[in-house]
Amino acid sequence: MRNNQFAIRPTDFDTQIKELKEIRFLNKDNEAENSPSKLLKSFLKLGYPEIKSDQALAHRLHSLQATEDSDAYDYLENNEQVSVLAFYNIALQLLQFNPDVDFTFSDPLEAMKKIQLKVSDHKTDKFDHDEIISAWYWLLATHTKNGQSFIDRLATQGYFVPFYKDTTKQLLFNGKTLPIFDPHKLIREVVYVESPQDTDHDGKLDLLKAEIIRPAQTQKGLKVPVLYTATPYLQGTNDETGLEMTHNVNVSLRHKEPNDTKYEDIEYHTPDEKLPDKRIVNGSATEAEEGFIKDLCYSLNDYFLARGFAVVYASGVGTSDSDGMRTTGGPEETTSTIAIIEWLAGNRIAFTNRVDNIEIKAWWSNKSVGMTGRSYLGTLATAAATTGVEGLKTIVTEAAISSWYDYYRDGGLVIAAGGFPGEDADVLAEETFSRRLNPGDFHRIKEAWDEKLIELNHDQDRDTGDYNTYWDARNYHKNFKNIKADVLMVHGLNDWNVKPRNVERLWNGIKNNNIVQKAILHQGQHIYINNFRSIDYTDMINLWMTHELLDVDNQAEKILPDVIIQDNIKPETWDTYDNWSDPENPRKVFNLAPDKLADKPSDTTVSFKDSLSDDQYWAYSKDNDAWQADLLKDDSPLNDNRLVFKTDKLSDNMTLDGIPKLDLTVSSNQDLGMLSFQLVDYGKAKRLNVSPSVLTPNGIDETFDWRKDDLREFELGKETASKMITKGHINLQNRHNPYKNDELTPDKFYDLSVSLQPNFYHLLKDHQLGLIIYATDFGMTVRGNQDLKYSFELENAKLSIPLHKQN
Amino acid sequence: MRNNQFAIRPTDFDTQIKELKEIRFLNKDNEAENSPSKLLKSFLKLGYPEIKSDQALAHRLHSLQATEDSDAYDYLENNEQVSVLAFYNIALQLLQFNPDVDFTFSDPLEAMKKIQLKVSDHKTDKFDHDEIISAWYWLLATHTKNGQSFIDRLATQGYFVPFYKDTTKQLLFNGKTLPIFDPHKLIREVVYVESPQDTDHDGKLDLLKAEIIRPAQTQKGLKVPVLYTATPYLQGTNDETGLEMTHNVNVSLRHKEPNDTKYEDIEYHTPDEKLPDKRIVNGSATEAEEGFIKDLCYSLNDYFLARGFAVVYASGVGTSDSDGMRTTGGPEETTSTIAIIEWLAGNRIAFTNRVDNIEIKAWWSNKSVGMTGRSYLGTLATAAATTGVEGLKTIVTEAAISSWYDYYRDGGLVIAAGGFPGEDADVLAEETFSRRLNPGDFHRIKEAWDEKLIELNHDQDRDTGDYNTYWDARNYHKNFKNIKADVLMVHGLNDWNVKPRNVERLWNGIKNNNIVQKAILHQGQHIYINNFRSIDYTDMINLWMTHELLDVDNQAEKILPDVIIQDNIKPETWDTYDNWSDPENPRKVFNLAPDKLADKPSDTTVSFKDSLSDDQYWAYSKDNDAWQADLLKDDSPLNDNRLVFKTDKLSDNMTLDGIPKLDLTVSSNQDLGMLSFQLVDYGKAKRLNVSPSVLTPNGIDETFDWRKDDLREFELGKETASKMITKGHINLQNRHNPYKNDELTPDKFYDLSVSLQPNFYHLLKDHQLGLIIYATDFGMTVRGNQDLKYSFELENAKLSIPLHKQN
Repeated sequence: MRNNQFAIRPTDFDTQIKELKEIRFLNKDNEAENSPSKLLKSFLKLGYPEIKSDQALAHRLHSLQATEDSDAYDYLENNEQVSVLAFYNIALQLLQFNPDVDFTFSDPLEAMKKIQLKVSDHKTDKFDHDEIISAWYWLLATHTKNGQSFIDRLATQGYFVPFYKDTTKQLLFNGKTLPIFDPHKLIREVVYVESPQDTDHDGKLDLLKAEIIRPAQTQKGLKVPVLYTATPYLQGTNDETGLEMTHNVNVSLRHKEPNDTKYEDIEYHTPDEKLPDKRIVNGSATEAEEGFIKDLCYSLNDYFLARGFAVVYASGVGTSDSDGMRTTGGPEETTSTIAIIEWLAGNRIAFTNRVDNIEIKAWWSNKSVGMTGRSYLGTLATAAATTGVEGLKTIVTEAAISSWYDYYRDGGLVIAAGGFPGEDADVLAEETFSRRLNPGDFHRIKEAWDEKLIELNHDQDRDTGDYNTYWDARNYHKNFKNIKADVLMVHGLNDWNVKPRNVERLWNGIKNNNIVQKAILHQGQHIYINNFRSIDYTDMINLWMTHELLDVDNQAEKILPDVIIQDNIKPETWDTYDNWSDPENPRKVFNLAPDKLADKPSDTTVSFKDSLSDDQYWAYSKDNDAWQADLLKDDSPLNDNRLVFKTDKLSDNMTLDGIPKLDLTVSSNQDLGMLSFQLVDYGKAKRLNVSPSVLTPNGIDETFDWRKDDLREFELGKETASKMITKGHINLQNRHNPYKNDELTPDKFYDLSVSLQPNFYHLLKDHQLGLIIYATDFGMTVRGNQDLKYSFELENAKLSIPLHKQN
Repeated sequence: MRNNQFAIRPTDFDTQIKELKEIRFLNKDNEAENSPSKLLKSFLKLGYPEIKSDQALAHRLHSLQATEDSDAYDYLENNEQVSVLAFYNIALQLLQFNPDVDFTFSDPLEAMKKIQLKVSDHKTDKFDHDEIISAWYWLLATHTKNGQSFIDRLATQGYFVPFYKDTTKQLLFNGKTLPIFDPHKLIREVVYVESPQDTDHDGKLDLLKAEIIRPAQTQKGLKVPVLYTATPYLQGTNDETGLEMTHNVNVSLRHKEPNDTKYEDIEYHTPDEKLPDKRIVNGSATEAEEGFIKDLCYSLNDYFLARGFAVVYASGVGTSDSDGMRTTGGPEETTSTIAIIEWLAGNRIAFTNRVDNIEIKAWWSNKSVGMTGRSYLGTLATAAATTGVEGLKTIVTEAAISSWYDYYRDGGLVIAAGGFPGEDADVLAEETFSRRLNPGDFHRIKEAWDEKLIELNHDQDRDTGDYNTYWDARNYHKNFKNIKADVLMVHGLNDWNVKPRNVERLWNGIKNNNIVQKAILHQGQHIYINNFRSIDYTDMINLWMTHELLDVDNQAEKILPDVIIQDNIKPETWDTYDNWSDPENPRKVFNLAPDKLADKPSDTTVSFKDSLSDDQYWAYSKDNDAWQADLLKDDSPLNDNRLVFKTDKLSDNMTLDGIPKLDLTVSSNQDLGMLSFQLVDYGKAKRLNVSPSVLTPNGIDETFDWRKDDLREFELGKETASKMITKGHINLQNRHNPYKNDELTPDKFYDLSVSLQPNFYHLLKDHQLGLIIYATDFGMTVRGNQDLKYSFELENAKLSIPLHKQN
């Protein structure tokens, strides 16, 4: 049991007093109180918002233990002073820690230290008057056992409900906004933003539905910051028709005709299209004509809705109630995404309905927009930022794609997102084309959509897997230089859906933009982390958004570490770093020798075949997890279908930090070929489970009587023999780059360099680092079961591991 | 995709009109409207509560398709009449069905039939004026694709929000209450009920905390019915200390000294104890001094909170903020449970706090109480009903225990609840003794509690597993005759935690009570079913509670089938019956022959041993699922540890309905022994998954802006070779009954009859019925790995299967 809090703002005593007065813990009833114990009792009384009488409070205090022998009521009655020990015994109970499990009444400070909870300064073993005030201040900022700060816990108990009627603007505590806005008084409205494009070519600029949730206080003049989540999924998805379009991956890898394609040949250029005229504004309104009910229930946004932020959702071109076509991440979608921001910043027109041309302004917006969202949603935040659009102050990107080629392709190969073999850009376009869910609308656009799907299928080019104009149009790296918004990126180091390369390229791609950039890397797959017990993620985002969108100098950019990485070995451990995947990191180079990652080169040639028996092939096709398990096993049905190279047992711990690289000399027995690679940690150990456990269903309330989230945490699982660290793929005909096709003469050896996916990984002493080279990746590549044999001259074969540079 | 609605009340046209007026679909704007299409348009307009303008409505109607060629807007503009086809095309879209998946615009009625949706009467292929009103009425009562009636779906969209300000009492539609109560105006309060016992022997009658949630309208005089859930878990549980107390099950089965114990020897009698005096009332109040925040968030109760019901939670003796000790289901707990009902009915005193003796009455209660809850919660409802307490009108028991011996014991054996080996009554007492979670309170009671645990450990008697005074005190069957409340029982036919015997004995035990009894048996394990898509469970409970607690003659007792059983073969299929497990059901008797369930007896003797290799033993001890899988396998590591008897392939379908019984002649090679039995369906088939799938997380709203539940459904899984139907256990020294210990001479044969757990199961033609006889049940019995051998003379060995009696 260990808490990690990064969002606590250092605060001087005068500011503590000021803030405690603002949140009414210091008030006219207790401001003249000199006795530390009576002061503490007055705080405790306020700490039970549901209690209305002294007798009921007495019962609560009798229920708390203060020392080994005395309950809190008796202790406070019988003592003028409050010992540090008694204070933290009481505090630990208020923080929901359990004396049977987490601490002892004889030494609460030992537990405070172990759990990593802040102990307030004290000159003696008793808190004096000022010290008890300070101790209460820090207690309010401290996390409970259940993933919330104590003040947020009090909020969920109703502490701020009496504030609602007086709320006129945001209120801060310790640099973060407080839930003083009644979440059941939120205003929900729909507008239609006119975007500067006509993607369905119906002769009218595309109207885009935007859904707004804003505090009631905006009606009285409060201008609020906006959390904007662009989510193609929110209006519904076409799961069945998408599934039908899923591509067959049990097909052969094909030879590609060698060519001399240069980047200029495939570079994407914005087409010079004549646009329809803008609609002629025919009046204006300040009230919308439509509300809406269903929203994302995204707990991070929900949390801010009680804290004086507006939340805006828009699904973009081709979704239900909007115009246009979907193209999966293309420039049209970027334009569509930022149209909403332009409206929020006062630079674009929206209408109250789709017909009357009555303009409605975002008159309630403070013109500071932050984008949030995971996966495709975070991707669109990244896309938006690359335009440098005015008003976008920050993006928080969770598990975001930074180039769609890095999502659906790699090294001249079709490479599926983990868990979704056969999905591709066209399938995702169909799945998110929610205009289909309005059958009346769909009836009118059906033919054009069918044509668009044919076009997408052609342009994405599954035949070659090459980088082409379609993918160049979806490569946000090209415009990283335009990013002006601060970026906080969150990514799972085990995310094989949106692979870590996506975040690494963003991290290293904006270093010269003169913006603030932060990264949080966790040990999860493709998940949110705003409901974890061991890290104060939500508090961090609060500190961050308060800084970015409310223009408050709360030091967020200095307080938040530049890089936070969850340890892959110890549970509940989040370490801080200055940087991640620094290209200048030192490297350790291993030579490949038969079965070994060795110090010295070997002049041997080794080889493996790719084909399997029909039975094995079909079994693995149906059960990719079984294939992956067998691939890592020492003695395995896949022995002949792979090469395994292992170090000796490591004599010291080793920390991989960045992009592993491989140099090989390889031949194929045919004029086509692909290779896959996995870097593996071999060594028996209990490792973190693949998915976080639910500690308490609905255990986190976003505030009083409002939405909830499950409380989660990664726990250690049963002992396992090995774990994949990272992987990579390449087509042997894309040895130079992913758009040019190289020749490949059967049985001729070629030099090949390949970069694996970046990572950060603690390898323990006595474990072995392993490299597996294989071809067909049942979870990601096509599965041709072809009669292919790959051979390797090991003399110059090297694995280069980037090492974390100790400061 | 199939809906099953049992809670639709037949309603004549005049009543339809009246109700449509009450819910404002018929109103002054449309009551004079003669055109069916204009009338439908007026209904549709009201069907979009979030829409405020005609243009916005036009957009909605353009988004719906009415016929293959026309959208709904154009259709209603251009037609005076509304065809049945156009109506149901529109209706299916409103019900969230998808034309790509669920229906075609050319023949919506085919889909209506397949999905089992009600089609309203029509004389021609067009709806006339009255018919369209009626069609809309029935549409409102019809379930959407997502587990809610359309009117409840509209409620979640905010339809009833404008009603809130005028709400003075419950409003009904089609016999069920509507969500016209603002769930964010609920009043939450705590009172302390004085119970007529002193279970912690502190010289004061135990005070019991009760938590009340009631509609704001009670403040203005509305008397409301109460859903009361007695839940020992709500105030928190001691998981860690409970886990520490878990008993070791890797211990030997022991010989029991033969005795001649008669029931009179162990019968429980209420002790004649002198009670402390009642507190002297020292004033009265109508307002509580304490609110509370955390509640069960039990979606069935939450649903009723918006519908004009109060909900009361109480955890009972020995829980946080209450007095007393926990004893796991004893008479003290029954007394504690009904004390709350007595207060709600005006027959017991409660106080505003624990000290001042200020009385507070349940002045807002209409004195009609219904109990709800699953597992231990449902058990306490059953316990309460057996007292015949005034005010308790009905209990809805989900997965409830009807005798604690049937939960923790069977046939003279310690038999764990599935999944919890080593748990026992003392462990559960410790887990629910939440006074421990108030360390100040616990400090004062700790010694007495430690003594109580020693007493419980002794009284439950794990050494013999015999039925004794402790268990007799926890056998609710003894008082079934006192049950006056109507009973609706819900149980999983695959619930091996609270085994089906518990519900079957309740079902057959109250047949002469002259009350209404209903049963719903589903294919789940130990789960709720109030969030399933294929059955309108929540509607049924609404109809039922409205009838029972609001004293409305809505025909619930006639409309709801007596017995509903989810089919074990076909998904989304719920069949209705008059009875279940009728003792008069015909029986088919099979003779046991080597490997066979045969027509003719066999004179063979067969045997098996119980012991395993150490490796196997420890592997199965750690992985009970692996043991169960091996037990059912044809060729299995357990071949020598079991006897398997199978019928030939069945020539016809067969429906087991009731209690299977076995007659055996058996010997043990030692003076101790136990047998376990499983009845198995052998035959390759896709079967329903063990757990329901989540179709849509948070897919069910209990009303607008209120709590949510996941939408779930059982789906067919991968093909499996077999499935356990039911099981049973017996100690060879309890051949006569579970309290008398019979002699057992090694190697001597004894006649033995045993009843397995009841069930209801469709066995398909070409499948085989199998019986497995074994001894150690790794999931349930002690695991002694003893050198035991069991032999069977088959001559009189018979398996008797109760068959469903066709009407």
